[in-house]
This record gives sequence, C-alpha cells and structure tokens, in this order.
Amino acid sequence: MRRSALLTLCLSLITTTAFADGGMWTFQEFPHELLKRTHNADVTPAWLDRVRTATIRLQNCTASFVSPDGLILTNHHCAEACLDEHSTKDKNLVADGFLARTRDQEKRCGTQIADVLMDMENITAKIGAATKGLDAKAANEKRKATMTTLEQQCEQDSKGAKGGPFKCETVDMYQGGQYWLYKYHRYSDVRLVFAPEREIAAFGGDPDNFQYPRWDLDMSVMRAYDADGKPAATPNFLAIRPKGPEAGELVFVSGHPGSTSRQLTVAELETLRNVIYPRWLLRASELRGRLIQFGKSSPEAHRIADDPLNALENGIKVRRKQLDALLDDRLMQSKRKDEAALRAKVAADPALAREIGDPWATIANAQARDAELALPYSYLEQGVGFGVSGGGSLFGYARMLVRAAAERPLENTKRLREYSDSALPRAQQRLLAPLPVYPALQKLYLSFGLERMREWLGPDAPIVRQLLSKESPDTLADKLVDGTKLADPAVRKQLWEGGAAAVNASTDPMIVLAREVDAEARTIRKSYEDEVEAPVDAASEKIARARFKIYGTSEPPDANFTLRLNFGVVEGWMENGKPVEPFTHLDRLYERATGQEPFKVPDSWLAAKPNLDLQTRFDLSTNNDIVGGNSGSPLIDKDGHIVGLMFDGNIHSISGDFWYDAELNRAVAVDPQIMFEGLRKVYKADELLKELSAQ
Amino acid sequence: MRRSALLTLCLSLITTTAFADGGMWTFQEFPHELLKRTHNADVTPAWLDRVRTATIRLQNCTASFVSPDGLILTNHHCAEACLDEHSTKDKNLVADGFLARTRDQEKRCGTQIADVLMDMENITAKIGAATKGLDAKAANEKRKATMTTLEQQCEQDSKGAKGGPFKCETVDMYQGGQYWLYKYHRYSDVRLVFAPEREIAAFGGDPDNFQYPRWDLDMSVMRAYDADGKPAATPNFLAIRPKGPEAGELVFVSGHPGSTSRQLTVAELETLRNVIYPRWLLRASELRGRLIQFGKSSPEAHRIADDPLNALENGIKVRRKQLDALLDDRLMQSKRKDEAALRAKVAADPALAREIGDPWATIANAQARDAELALPYSYLEQGVGFGVSGGGSLFGYARMLVRAAAERPLENTKRLREYSDSALPRAQQRLLAPLPVYPALQKLYLSFGLERMREWLGPDAPIVRQLLSKESPDTLADKLVDGTKLADPAVRKQLWEGGAAAVNASTDPMIVLAREVDAEARTIRKSYEDEVEAPVDAASEKIARARFKIYGTSEPPDANFTLRLNFGVVEGWMENGKPVEPFTHLDRLYERATGQEPFKVPDSWLAAKPNLDLQTRFDLSTNNDIVGGNSGSPLIDKDGHIVGLMFDGNIHSISGDFWYDAELNRAVAVDPQIMFEGLRKVYKADELLKELSAQ
Repeated sequence: MRRSALLTLCLSLITTTAFADGGMWTFQEFPHELLKRTHNADVTPAWLDRVRTATIRLQNCTASFVSPDGLILTNHHCAEACLDEHSTKDKNLVADGFLARTRDQEKRCGTQIADVLMDMENITAKIGAATKGLDAKAANEKRKATMTTLEQQCEQDSKGAKGGPFKCETVDMYQGGQYWLYKYHRYSDVRLVFAPEREIAAFGGDPDNFQYPRWDLDMSVMRAYDADGKPAATPNFLAIRPKGPEAGELVFVSGHPGSTSRQLTVAELETLRNVIYPRWLLRASELRGRLIQFGKSSPEAHRIADDPLNALENGIKVRRKQLDALLDDRLMQSKRKDEAALRAKVAADPALAREIGDPWATIANAQARDAELALPYSYLEQGVGFGVSGGGSLFGYARMLVRAAAERPLENTKRLREYSDSALPRAQQRLLAPLPVYPALQKLYLSFGLERMREWLGPDAPIVRQLLSKESPDTLADKLVDGTKLADPAVRKQLWEGGAAAVNASTDPMIVLAREVDAEARTIRKSYEDEVEAPVDAASEKIARARFKIYGTSEPPDANFTLRLNFGVVEGWMENGKPVEPFTHLDRLYERATGQEPFKVPDSWLAAKPNLDLQTRFDLSTNNDIVGGNSGSPLIDKDGHIVGLMFDGNIHSISGDFWYDAELNRAVAVDPQIMFEGLRKVYKADELLKELSAQ
Repeated sequence: MRRSALLTLCLSLITTTAFADGGMWTFQEFPHELLKRTHNADVTPAWLDRVRTATIRLQNCTASFVSPDGLILTNHHCAEACLDEHSTKDKNLVADGFLARTRDQEKRCGTQIADVLMDMENITAKIGAATKGLDAKAANEKRKATMTTLEQQCEQDSKGAKGGPFKCETVDMYQGGQYWLYKYHRYSDVRLVFAPEREIAAFGGDPDNFQYPRWDLDMSVMRAYDADGKPAATPNFLAIRPKGPEAGELVFVSGHPGSTSRQLTVAELETLRNVIYPRWLLRASELRGRLIQFGKSSPEAHRIADDPLNALENGIKVRRKQLDALLDDRLMQSKRKDEAALRAKVAADPALAREIGDPWATIANAQARDAELALPYSYLEQGVGFGVSGGGSLFGYARMLVRAAAERPLENTKRLREYSDSALPRAQQRLLAPLPVYPALQKLYLSFGLERMREWLGPDAPIVRQLLSKESPDTLADKLVDGTKLADPAVRKQLWEGGAAAVNASTDPMIVLAREVDAEARTIRKSYEDEVEAPVDAASEKIARARFKIYGTSEPPDANFTLRLNFGVVEGWMENGKPVEPFTHLDRLYERATGQEPFKVPDSWLAAKPNLDLQTRFDLSTNNDIVGGNSGSPLIDKDGHIVGLMFDGNIHSISGDFWYDAELNRAVAVDPQIMFEGLRKVYKADELLKELSAQ
C-alpha cells in the first residue's frame, strides 16, 4: 500500500515542478505566487522579517523567541546536553526536569548559542569571479580562501551595523548554483529556564519513535542574554496562540532544516546506498548495543549513557529509513528518469551542452574514489577510530588543540576552514566549556573505535600496526583515558593559550596520539578534498547552472541548516488504509501508560491527573516539509502566532531526505494546549506563564 | 580493481555454462567429462564411494574419518559447542584446549551427531505423482505429507539394510527440479579427543577474519562411537598426507556446503537485499555490541559470551559481504540479463511457455507478501522476539515442549515436519542434552529480543501489548529466566515424557509464554507457508523444469547442506594488484604476535618455539568453491589422501553465495604440515599421532 502511494507521487514529481506543500524555501526567494495559487493566501514582507528575526538557530536545532525579554521556546531534546551538563550523580535534570522561578536560578548552557539571521547577501558573482578559469582543484582551494576573506571582511564591517556585530557565514545553495553570505546576530550566553521530565518529554521513547511520537511534551524554555549579562531585548518575538490550530488550517514552519539530498545525482545516491549508510548503520547499531549494555551495569552508568543513546537511536531511525528509501528500486528508477530528462534537455541545447560538458560522468568517477577513501577518511580524519562521536570526546579536544596550534599562526585564508578567524571563537567556546567527561564512557567509545578501525582498515594497515601492535583496543583505551588530563577545562585552556609551544611539548597521551596521527589524517583529507570534493563541487555547480537555465528557481535548494520557511496544513494521513487523526489528546496518554520506561508517566502528571482536562490536545501532525534541524521550530499561523512546536516527523517523513511525499510525509508538533495545561496545573510555573502570556 | 574483475567474470558466466573450477556437484551427477576436459584427470566410482562414506555431516559442519577406529578430523570452531559444554568457571576448554590420552578420557559431546551418506534415491517422480493436478497450496501440503511418508517407509525398510538402520531425509535439488531421498548412517555418540587452544586455532580472530585467516590451527579431533559404546569401525577412512599438497596440484573438497542462492530469481535476490539482510545485520550488530560489553563485566562473563560472539561475528562477516554483493548493481544487472535470457528461450518454445506460464511473476508477487510477513514470522514463529538465536535458549526448549506436546498425538503426516517420527529422535537429543544455560546471557538475549520486537512490530501490536503492557523488556526477561526451571535437563525430560497433560498443566513461566504465543505464531506460519512458500515453490519448480529442458544438468544445484564434491587447484590470488601466495609459514605467526588477543600466541607455542621448524607450512588457499557448512571438510588429492582441512574462505569467497568468482574466490585450509608439527612437538600427542599414521 505505502509503496504504491509513494510511487504515484514520485511519478507525478517527474512531470511537474509543483511541490504540493513540500519545499523548504529561503526567505529571499519565498514563492508568494505558489502560496496564492495553492492556498489563496499570502504573507507580507513585514511578516517575513518578523518571523525571520524571531527564529533562532541553536547548535543543532531551531528555536524561537516567545517573549520580549529573550525567552526561547525549543524542544526538550534540544536542551538535553545542557540538562546533562548540570546533572550530577544525585540530581539528574534530564530525568527530573527543571524550573527556574527567578532569573537568578536560570542555568547557563556551556556550549549553547542562539543565532538570528539578520541579513543575506548574494555573493555568487564574487565567488565566480575569483575562481574563473581555474581547474577544479585550484578552484576548490581558491573558493575556500575567498569565502574566508569575505567572512572576515563582513565581520569587520558589521561592527557598527544595526544588530551587529555579525557572525558571517558563507553558504552554498543549489550545490554551488548560488553562494550567499549569511549574517547572524549571535547570543553566546543562553540559559535554561524550564524543562519537563524526560518521561513526559519523550513518552513512548524509541518504540513510538520508530513509527511516530504522539504523546510527548517535547518542550524546553531557555533565555538569551546579551554580553553584558542582561536578558536580550527581543521585541520581534512571536506570541503563542494557546488554543492551537484547527484541522485543515494553513500553517508555516520557520527553521533550520539540516540537510536534504534531493538534488544529488544517481551516482551520489548510490554511494550513500551502497557504502555510506550500510557502514554507518552497522557501526551505530553495535554502539547502540554497547551503550545499552553499559547502561545496565549501574544506575549511574544508565544516567550517563542515556543522552548519547537517545541521540544515537534517533540517528539510527533516520538512517535506516533513508536506506529503505534508497533500496526502493522505484525511487532510484524515478531519480534515473529525472536525471535522464535533465540530460536530454541539456543535450538539446548545444551551447549549454558545450558549456557544461558531462558533469554527471565527473561525479560518477569521483564516487569510486569516494568509496575508496571513505574508510580512512572517517576513521582517521573524522576521528571515528578514536571514539569521536561528538565534540565532547577527549580525542576531539586533543585534535582541536593540535590542529589549532598548527593553524592559528598561519595567514587566515591559508588555514583549514574550521580554524579561520571567523570560526575560532566558536571552536574556543566548545573546547573550553566545562562539560562533564565520564571516563567509563570515554573508554567505551575509544575501545570501540579502535576495534572497528582494526576490523575495517585491517590489522596490517600502518595506523593499526602503529597503535595496536602490542596493545588491545581495551588496554590502549584505558591507558589513554586514564592518562590524559584533557577532561579538565583548565588544562585545555592552558594548552589553548600556550599555542604550538605548549602543545608540542605536551606529554599528555591523548595529545601525543593526536600529534602522531595528524600527518596521515591530513594527507587523507587532502586526497579527499582534491580527488572527491573538488571535482564533485565543480561538476555540481555545472549541473546547477543547467537546472537554473532549464527550470529556473521553481525548486528550492536542498536544505543545509540555513533558515527556511515552508507552508502546509494541519492534517493526518492514511496508514495502511486507516486514517490517523491530526490531533492526540491527553486521555490516551494515561491509557497507554505501563509504569515502565519508556511508557512511564512521571509522578507529577499522575498526581495532577484529577485536575487536568483529559480532552486537552497533546500533539498534532501537519504536512509541512521538515527534516532534522527543524526540531524546535515554531509552527506559525498566518497572523504570525505560534500554534505548535515541531519536534519530529512520522516514519514516512524520513524519506523526505530524497523527495517530498505529500500523501504520507507528516511533521509532528506539540500543541500549545498541552504546554499551557502542563505549565499551569502540573508545574505551576506561574512566572513563566505570565511572561508567555504578556503579548 | 576488484569490481571490474568481478564484472568481467560475471559477463563470461552469462555466455557460457563452464564453471571454471566452481560448482558444488552431487556425487550422483559428478561431471567426469568436465574434470577430464579441464584437468585431464578422473576419479573412479570406487574413489567416489570411499570419499563419500568417509565424509561426515556434523550438526553444522563437515568432517571426515581419519582412522579405522572412528577418529574424526574437523575444525576447532566446529567443536566449540562441545568444548564449551565441558568448560566450567575454573577450566575453560575452549581457551585451554583438550587432549584425551586414552579413550577413557574422551568426552561425549551432548548434541553432536555424525551422519554418513550411505545411499541416494531419486523420488522426483513419486513427488510429482502425488501432487499432480493440485493447486499450489494443496500441492505444498501434499508434498510435505508425501515426504514424511517416504522418510518413514525408508527408515522402516532400512532396518535390515547394509549400514542400516538409516536416517532418511528428503531433499529438494534445483529449487524443486528434483527430489531425492538421502539415507544416512547416524552416529549419535561423538566424543572429543583433541583441540588446541583457541588462541592458535583462531589466531588473528575477527580482524584477520574480515580479510582472510592465515595462521590458524583450526582443527579438532573427535571419535564416533557405535550405540554399544564401542569406537565405530570405519575402514573407509581417508589417510592424511603429512607433507600436504603442492602449489597448482589438483585437489577435491568433499563436504556439506550449507546454502547458496545462485538460482534465485531477481525478485528473490531483491527481497534479500532490501529486507532480509539489512534487518538481520542491524539486529546482529546490536547484539554484537551487547555481547562485547557484557563480556567486559567479568572474566566469567567474557568466557560465556565468547562462543556465541564468535559465531555471531562470523555471521556478520558473511551477511555483510553478501549484502555488498547484492548492492553491486552490476551483479544485479547480470542476474537480470541472465533471467531475461532464460525467459526469452522459454517464450521461443510455445509448448514450454504454455506449460509453465509466468512463474517469475508469481514469485515477484509472493515477495511483496514475504516482505510483509517477514517481521512477525521472524519475531514470533522463529522466536527472535524471545531471544532464540540457537537451539539452546530457554524459550527454544519451551517452544519445543509445547509444540511437541501438541504434534506428537497427531498422525505422522499431519504434523509439522520438524515433529515427524523421522525428526523426533534428533529433537529429543537436542532438548535433553545437558548443555550449560547461563542465566545472565539468557536474560541478555531475551531482553534484547523483546525490546526489538516492540520496536519492529510496534508498541501497539497485540503481542507487544500482551507482553509489555506492564513490564519492560528487562523486568520481563528477569522474571522469565529467574522463574523457569527449564535450564534443568531433568525438568525438560519430565515435561517431554509427560506429554500434553504435563505441558498444559505446567505453570513454568517460559512454558506459559510459549503456550500463550503459540496460536498467533502458528497462524503466521500458516500464512507464510500458504502465501509465500507454496506459490514460490510451485513457481520455482516450473523455472527448474524450464532450465532442465534448456540447459540440462550442466549446472549443479544450489547448495543445501547435502553432500557435494568439487575440484580445484592449490593457488593464491591477486589482491589489489599484489599476489597473495597460496601458503603461509610458521615464522610469520611469531612475527605478527602482539601478546594481546586476538594476536596472542599461546604459551605452549611460545615454549615450543625453539624446537619447531619455522618453515613449516601453516595455512593454504585453493580455488575450490566452498561456502559455510564446508568447515571441517577434507581437502583430498587424486589418490584419496587428505592434504588439508578446510576452515574458511577469503573475504571474496562470500559472494560465492550468488556466483563463483574464479579470479578472487579462495578457500582456506589448515596444512597437514602444521597439524603434525603441532601434535608432535607442542602437544606431544603421541597416541593420536600413532593412530593418524596407521595407514
């Protein structure tokens, strides 16, 4: 049943550029005409500006301002790292929740930032001029240097600008079809105000999540502070409509969808299907098993494994469904047909054909090299072999210190991009944030990384012989984690400030390891950039140019964690022939409760039950086109009021990485009704309610 | 590099039916002509008879008789279950090895059997007559009943036969193109004589295994006993040639390859690629992580997890490479072309086309149903949701007791096939064998199974609601494992003998669980048999008939754990442009030793090193076409002497499931030189050497 619906849609996508309600549009190219045609509605420039400046990019989520004093609404799962950071053996904020009744009680999140997009400048012509006439490899290097220069100039120029100074970031739209300079106001001081218990935020947990989550109060509240320590003034905030939306109502999602792959070539999709996703899933599934088993060893182990396990399981869900989508021959056949149609149109335009040549063949050839380099690149350069699965690992710190020591003395445009002047403050913040480091967990990651590196690169690979000729993964992991002092932020600060001299003189075993593998890792990165990235980027740019000439900008660019707006309606879907209603209600939460995780209702909600209105709407579904990164996005009505808090999608929405399926793809949001009911009757958060209600 | 070689081969396979040296031939249809043409050699009927009756089918391995007194040679990994069975907390035979210096010291393996193929009878016509004119579902049921009847008659008739009584098993060749009755002499009393330490049997472990194992003394020795407790008389044994074979020498492998899928249709291969393998790998990888982490919790946990972990990791290696092969579009395209060619030939023969219709479409339609049923079938009927990953689990015992109680009172032909009179003695032996049951491990399996069942079937599936509405997977697993008495063989015996009355009255929680899920599991099995198995079997039979008519028996049937013989030569291969020599030698073992598992040389071999000839050949590679199930097979020279002990293949050999790749597919064997050197100088196994040398 599902497949034929998917196929129908896919065929219809080939013959039309209409996106039903799919499409993650940029604010600067918002399709007013399409909105009028499909929904007989429009939004004004002022509406767009207000929504844009009320939308926040967090580290890897979206959020929005919901009061004039910098109050931020986002998901519970977007605040988990901060909750974790302030948890101890005896007080687990992730599990128990948190409420600051006064501003003094708000807790600063060590690595959280809040970026607001203030301005966008099209720099396609500048990049084009800088790289004109260069071959792919030289153009790739020149492009990066030009980006660094433009970012640097932008940040210097912005010091006197309104809302400045800005963080400036170049972004690539349409696989190199356009380049933009995005200018953000950055709040580096973000504090935690409220989070409910995890049991209610993620009720149903993974079991529900593998279909769709339905009774989750996946919310948290934070506040942005200015550099002077005062709450940020945010007059452009969005007020919440407490009653929530109606079925069928037109709704918008503003946010930062992380990444889609709808415009990849067939060759690139095949690399994902044949190489990247299966390997990632094998590794992640084993790590899942290790973390689960580790968590059974003690309550403390359970607590510290909980947050990384949740993130990992969500990743597995996504990758698994992405792989399913790519394994569906019908999707691939539709992509092949689509590509053939574009190539035929190019061939029919001799001037265009001469101009772009055969970029598809270039990309296909680079894929073979990609498949060869993927293993050493991930294990050595991305640090998978050393347990890196996030910025917080000990090897991650060591790598950053070693690289920064080598890069910072270089001229800005000559550095690796992540150590440019524009990027350094953020790197420093992440390095020095006093996040907890759990040795037992670090050993688990490191031993796992080393063991799989030996398996996949083979016992006779030089790096494997170098590290594991007289040690097992376990003994080496023990030595490194027990021996390093990098868990201490003060030690990291000393090395960061001491620069190359301090880092090169260090005998800290993790620093020594990072130094020893650096040359080989950089060599692989260089090969990857020259032999995969450069030709693919150059060829993608050519395909994008052809697309523009043939289709115009009637298709939005692939998501890339930049701000997007899309519209849709509140609606359910048909699952195996049965309708799924767009709203869930509080009563079914209690009916589904088992008393056991992840179907355990927290005590606070059990105690409050007699006072609650059991017909309160809980979660709701819409046909908005969202992906990971949209978590925490405001769902907005045509008047600019918040009518929901996006936190996930149904299982079908994961194929949204490759296409938008109007029949089945649904986004899931927390309804304002349950937020207010909970804050009022369960948490008695009167101060917060007062601030949220001041319109 | 590798891929193009594979492709070249594949294209050549389409245009010719020559199998280079691939091909797992039955003894009754051995291709004498082909052997003459390709190797200018032949074997006599007497040679074939001797080799056949010296080859042994173990539980899931092959072995051979190597002395007139029932001495059996096989792999260490084929004896691990037996070594495990006789291990305790204080004495780990898997790790430490074992040597019986007298027959009294030999240790009986609880569930091991040794089957020798005595006779083969073609029953295709009988099956055809019984099912003539019936529709697919009725034919499927009738076929099974007929098989049960023929087996029963055969066993009754065999009581006076030479070598009798026989175990009679019907087998299906060519996907239903032929049916045979295979008649075995069964030794149910098999005892352990010798095994080296695991460190030397599996040196290099998983890291080497993921490429190819090269310095492994993967041998063990057992002995078959007659029912009267006396060593079996086995005059047809094969003598070992201590010097081993020469490079380029013609060699034969006789054994029981488990399963190949070379004659599946494209639709069936797609089901494996899209549904079956990815799910299996996700599950197995997570279980791998759980077992590894569990093993770190104590030395005892490490010991008890070791054997299941090895088996699992080997399975992952195989499945992973099988999936890689199927993800190679060129393999699929070649299979499509192959299928199209056969269909064109059928279409060109109107009588044949009329006779068989469109069996490919029938199979493709059944695949969609297969994909739907696969999850409940595996979780409920195959017991994956209850931690069943082998015959030894507690739920496995409970299921067997509950099913047998219901089936045994029925007429023989009406029973589920695994409870027919012919199958019952084996079921009973497995049920009552005093294998160790480790509660901690059982809880791990069960909790994992329940948790994944909830994830994959969904929290609202009836079985999930029934079991997990008030329990978590952990709490339920604890209750079941702590509460059941089925770990005790005496309790199982009581219930087995007590039959339906005892089983139905039992309050043992595992029995209660097995009773409760039985109706639903049987319903799913019935759907699967009627809607997938029956149409696929009927259609496959039609395709097989077409193949016969068009190609004859110039291709051997897919492997199905029946006895096969294939020939090849001792040779290495080219790996990434570099030659891999066919022999390894003892000196490199010591050079590669790290002192850490899995590169740890056992103390016995370190102590003996000064006395050893370091130029002794260790392992060797041949281009014989083998797959799992061939482990322990004798490698035989043209004079009928053993010149090696097969134990694995290189990584490329795994694609052998779908095609035979003459350039890259290599089998790996233990060289007799290292067996004799080790037995003589390391283990000083003089009695054993004496028996092995008596020709």
